[in-house]
Order: sequence, then C-alpha cells, then structure tokens
Amino acid sequence: MATRLLRVPPPEELLRPLAVPERLLLGPGPSNVPRRVQAAGGRQILGHMHPEMLQVMDEIKAGIQYAFQTRNRLTLAISGSGHSAMEAALFNLLEQGDTVLVAINGIWGQRAAEIARRLGANVCELLKPPGKYFTLQDIEQGLVQHKPLVLFITHGESSSGVLQPLEGLGKLCHRHGCLLLVDSVASLGGAPIFMDQQEIDVLYSGSQKVLNAPPGSAPISFSERAREKLLRRKTKPLSFYLDMGLLANYWGCDGEPRRYHHTAPINSFFSLRESLAMLAERGLENSWERHRANCTRLCQGLLAMGLELFVEEEKARLPTITTVKVPEGYDWKDITAFLMKNRGMEVAGGLGPTVGKVLRIGLMGCNSTSDNVDRVLRALQDALKRCHRSRL
Amino acid sequence: MATRLLRVPPPEELLRPLAVPERLLLGPGPSNVPRRVQAAGGRQILGHMHPEMLQVMDEIKAGIQYAFQTRNRLTLAISGSGHSAMEAALFNLLEQGDTVLVAINGIWGQRAAEIARRLGANVCELLKPPGKYFTLQDIEQGLVQHKPLVLFITHGESSSGVLQPLEGLGKLCHRHGCLLLVDSVASLGGAPIFMDQQEIDVLYSGSQKVLNAPPGSAPISFSERAREKLLRRKTKPLSFYLDMGLLANYWGCDGEPRRYHHTAPINSFFSLRESLAMLAERGLENSWERHRANCTRLCQGLLAMGLELFVEEEKARLPTITTVKVPEGYDWKDITAFLMKNRGMEVAGGLGPTVGKVLRIGLMGCNSTSDNVDRVLRALQDALKRCHRSRL
Repeated sequence: MATRLLRVPPPEELLRPLAVPERLLLGPGPSNVPRRVQAAGGRQILGHMHPEMLQVMDEIKAGIQYAFQTRNRLTLAISGSGHSAMEAALFNLLEQGDTVLVAINGIWGQRAAEIARRLGANVCELLKPPGKYFTLQDIEQGLVQHKPLVLFITHGESSSGVLQPLEGLGKLCHRHGCLLLVDSVASLGGAPIFMDQQEIDVLYSGSQKVLNAPPGSAPISFSERAREKLLRRKTKPLSFYLDMGLLANYWGCDGEPRRYHHTAPINSFFSLRESLAMLAERGLENSWERHRANCTRLCQGLLAMGLELFVEEEKARLPTITTVKVPEGYDWKDITAFLMKNRGMEVAGGLGPTVGKVLRIGLMGCNSTSDNVDRVLRALQDALKRCHRSRL
Repeated sequence: MATRLLRVPPPEELLRPLAVPERLLLGPGPSNVPRRVQAAGGRQILGHMHPEMLQVMDEIKAGIQYAFQTRNRLTLAISGSGHSAMEAALFNLLEQGDTVLVAINGIWGQRAAEIARRLGANVCELLKPPGKYFTLQDIEQGLVQHKPLVLFITHGESSSGVLQPLEGLGKLCHRHGCLLLVDSVASLGGAPIFMDQQEIDVLYSGSQKVLNAPPGSAPISFSERAREKLLRRKTKPLSFYLDMGLLANYWGCDGEPRRYHHTAPINSFFSLRESLAMLAERGLENSWERHRANCTRLCQGLLAMGLELFVEEEKARLPTITTVKVPEGYDWKDITAFLMKNRGMEVAGGLGPTVGKVLRIGLMGCNSTSDNVDRVLRALQDALKRCHRSRL
C-alpha cells in the first residue's frame, strides 16, 4: 500500500523499557505527586465533550474558585503549564500599544516583560533587586509615572524565594485605573491569597507546585473588571488556543451551549481535579499553616547549621521555597549533584538573577512535612562535609 | 496567620469521588489508551531537567523521527494539544505580512486561516467542498496566483474523512519557492507519510489519535529549509511558550547546553514515549496496513447496511476516520445518543462544515481491530432500528 520504503528504522532506545527512578523532589517544582493524584492521571480517558468530562471541568472550576477565594465566573484551567497561563493572561489583557507596568524582582517579571514586548505592548519596568519585595509606595510611584492599564506582579518569586505582600495593592491599582495581574504559580495553597477581597483582577497558578498534580494544566481566573477589558478589545487575542472568549465558552463560563475548542488534556484534568479535591478536604487555612510551620522549621535548621538565608526579612520569605546562600568555599553544583546522586533528592540552584548565588529548597503540598525538613537538613549537612572546595 | 477570613467554602462536589465511566471511544479522537500507556501516565514524576527526563525526551524525539520518517534535527513534542502544534507551526513560520496559502476542505484549514490572520499574515484561501481533496493542478494554480511563502494543507481531514494525497506536493511547492506545512493530527500512523522523501517542511500531529496517548502533547518537526526561514526572521515569534528557537534548545536540537524554558508535562511525555515505543515495536507498515484493512471492513459493512459513505472516491478515504452520511429519516443526535447510552460507545456527528450531514467513526491505533468494526456495525444496526423519526 505504501508507495515508498521506510528509510528511518525503529529507534533502538525505544525498544528498551521506560526507566523512571524514584526521587524526592525538594526543588522549586515540580513536587512529588501523591498516589491518589497519580492514579487519576493513569485512568482510562473520556471524550473531551462527554458530559462526565464537562462535569469534571465544572468541579475543577469550583476547586479553583475555592483555592483562589473568588466567585469569578470566568475561572478555568489552561491546557498547558503555568507559563502558558502567563501568556494567556497577557495575550488576553493586552493589545498592541497598551501600557503594562511589570514589577521585576526575579525571573518571572523578566518573562512577563518579554512576553508583553513580543505582543507589541508598551512595557514599563519597576525594578527591585532579587530578594526584595515591592512596597505600596514603590507601586504607587510606578502607577503615577507610567499610567499603565495593567500591573504585573509575582506573589511567590520562586527564583529568589520572596513572598510579595498583596494587601492594599488591588485597591491602589483600581484608584489609578489599572488592572492587577498576579502570578501565584509558586505560592498558591502555600501562602494566603484572597482574590476577591484583595481585588486581584487576573490570577493564575500552576498544577505542579503545592497542588501536587503533574505539570500540564494551569488555573486562571478573571475578575469582572478584567472581563470587561476583554470585551472592549478592538482586536482578537493573538492566540486562538489561549483565547479566553473561546475558552470561557468551552468551560461553560458564558452561559452559552459549550462548543468544541481544542482537545483538553483529559488525564491532566483528572489529576488536577483530585489535587483540588485534596486541598478542599484539607482546607486552605490548614494548608497555609502547614507550609508556614515547615518553612520556619527549615529556616531554623539552616541558620543553626551556620548558613545564611537569602531573604533577610522573615515575613518576606516564601513558605513554599526557601533560598539559602551558597556558603563560601562551595560550588552549588557539587552540593545539588551530591544530593541527587547519594540521596535521590532534588534541591535546586538559582534561576535567572540568582544563578550561582543560592540553593532553593521547596516544601510544597504533600512534600511539606517535618520529616522532609529533617531529611533535607541532614542531607545538606552531609553534602557540606563532602563538597568543600576551598584551596582549589 | 491569614489576615482575612475565607468567604468561599470548599465545594461540595469536590468532596465526592471522581467518577469516570468506561467508554469505547470510536469517534474522531481521543481514542482509548492501552494499559501500558496509562501506566506510564500514572507514574511518579521526575524534574523537568533531570538527566533521565532529558533521556525520555531524546527517546520521544527518535520516536517522532521514526513515525514521521525524517532525520530532521529540529524534531520535538509541543507541551499542548495538536491545536497548539498548529499554532507553533504558524507562529514560527510566519511573520506579519507574510503570504500563506491555506487549502481549506474542512475545519482544519479554516482554523489555520484564522490563526494566521490573527498574527497578521496575508492569508489566501484555496477552497474545495468538504469530502474532496486537492490535486497537484489545484495547488499549482494557487501557488502561481498567490506566490505564498507557506502552503498549509491537511493530510487527514477528520471533519470530512478525507485523506489528502501528498505525493509530488513538496517538490511542487519548492519549485515555487514555498514551504509545505502539513497537519497530520488525524492520520499519523494510520496512513503512509514520509516527511523527508515527500519534502514536507513542517509536519505536526497529536498524541491522542493513532498514538493512543492522552491528549496534551504534540509531535512536530521542521526541515532544514523551514529552519532556515526561522533563522531569517526579523521579529521574534509572538509566543515565548511556542518559540521553536527556545524549544529547540530545551530539546537538545541545537547542540547547545539545555536551558530551562518551561516545565514540561512530564507524565504526558512518559505516555507519549510509551505510545511511540509501541508504534516502533509494531512497525509503521504494519500499523498502516491494519488501519487500511479495518477501514475497508468497516466501509463494506456500512455499504452492506445500505448506508452511503460521505467520501465517494475509495482512495481518498481516511483510514482512521470514516464519514457516513446520516440516512434520511434520522437525526444524527438520536443515533450518537443511543450508542453512548446503550452501548457505552462514542461515535461522533460532523464538525464545522459537516455538522448534521455525517456520522464519524474512528478506528485508531489499538481501537483499530476487526472486533471493534463488528461491534460498531452491530450497534449502528440496533440504533437505526430504534431511532427512526420519519413522520415527526
């Protein structure tokens, strides 16, 4: 039947079995996946328009509304990683020439600025060194100076380990006619956030951090104010895949009959549904408290070892990811390699502006336990004994 | 610790267990997932930059090169559905003002034209009624008239059930200084395609059709000619998430050290790896022959029942998805609803230009068996007995 002959043979390496070692993932994400969420991801699939699937999507929507503390009807999960949710937010909120103010104190602000530039927005930057957060005064100066339509800010800066205070920010933005867009990929479920009460206009997160689902889906929600900006657009969003109007219909957010838009990642949604169910069962407040307590225990342990934390102010430390300075006489790569090789444990180096300066230890969702704190502290102690390089 | 009180309570529906019924998915996709691929998707995850994960990605790359019959080094899987691969192809190949000729004989051409328009390309359309394919003469006329830089065409038109002949098309395009972009989402593994020998410049597919992996990852490959067009771009692609230059680095296609770009959907990649391994074990030629034989058996059965096939010419019928006209006196929705309710079986109605006109029966990958052919024919016979509506 084929008119031609195969010239590329079946690859040898695919004839060997899939090899996946066990790892304790204490980096900045992904985190480990609990058995129940894994099992959901391994189930037989459904059609993407079957009523039972639409029901699962409705449940995800309710779960996100709980996790975000919002009643926004335009709430759904993007079919991609947290990064694609960042693009979805910017692609939909901004049109060519719109002014956006991006608060940059680590890699996520840098990325948001890069994406906004690609789509032709007028990008203004508000800068702080990694490890620092923005005060209301910093933000107000930026708003007055640049008169942006949208402010982008990161709640959990996973590259530096900073938790950005959000109280008062929404009100401030609204007083200046600006929408507030918040990245909570690394913080959601690990630190308090109240989308409606804090007047956040667009909030997104990822599945693979505190939620402990595999990467590949990303919660997002738009306030009424943000939705009105979408309705006022003069041009269509550049991406059809990430067009919130079309997604809103597919997710049943617009009151219209649901139409096919794209084939959703069914199993990723099963996993996300289960991870949101586990968060609902545990309760947000318990989850926040657990992350706070284990982060405190970790920080105390690190300080007791004579190490220095990268974020000086205690209240500015992200409860999900702790950054500790690479001590003198060490190469960070030796330490992470030792932990990976000898303990099957992931601890990460820096990212973007913190490369070479810090180690990043993540305790997220089911990985945030006192046992894991003790385990990583012991392992780190062993690593420091073995990896000293001074006089090289 | 939280300064505010929760106002959105944990949703009731999330406290109930996840409910997923068993289904035989004989629509246009997704198709059922074999146990081995399911198991891979349910495994514990790895970090997205761990050497074992990069190894899995290398194996996926080799598997795609086999499935596509290409030696292109710029070969990888997009972290999204087949639809996002369509966007990746267009976002990277086209710049504002570039002329693209889109061959439209169903929904996929319509979508490609819509996406290309959003990104500011000069879109010319070449039209055929659904159920028909394009001849070399049709295409040559379009190339001469519009002088496009890129031609988009669909190999397996899943909305109409048409298989587009590709022989000679690449050569023709190249004679006219045009790149050939082919959508093989619904056909890959089910009908012969030889990317290199047929001089296809960009080819993409999805995971959830013949490959029998869950939706959420999408194979794509660029020829050297296409890669050169990417290198000549004056502007960056609009999407950072789908930027092939950045993805090429993350996938080890550019010879540089791999850098973090986004968090890949680890489990989707595990599943895709296993489904590509199964295809390599079975052999492409066996897979093509299996789809051909079962499609022929299905068509004969449908004709024997007195039904009429939507695609008249036998050689133009897509071996993976068969379109049959809705017989007079029936509403298609009654038939699909009967099959779903009483047989747990998905058969789909039309899509886009074929809505209301056809039923679509998919036999893809592990679902392409003679047992399934007999099962769907019997079920359809029962449905036709029960669902007659004449004189309503």
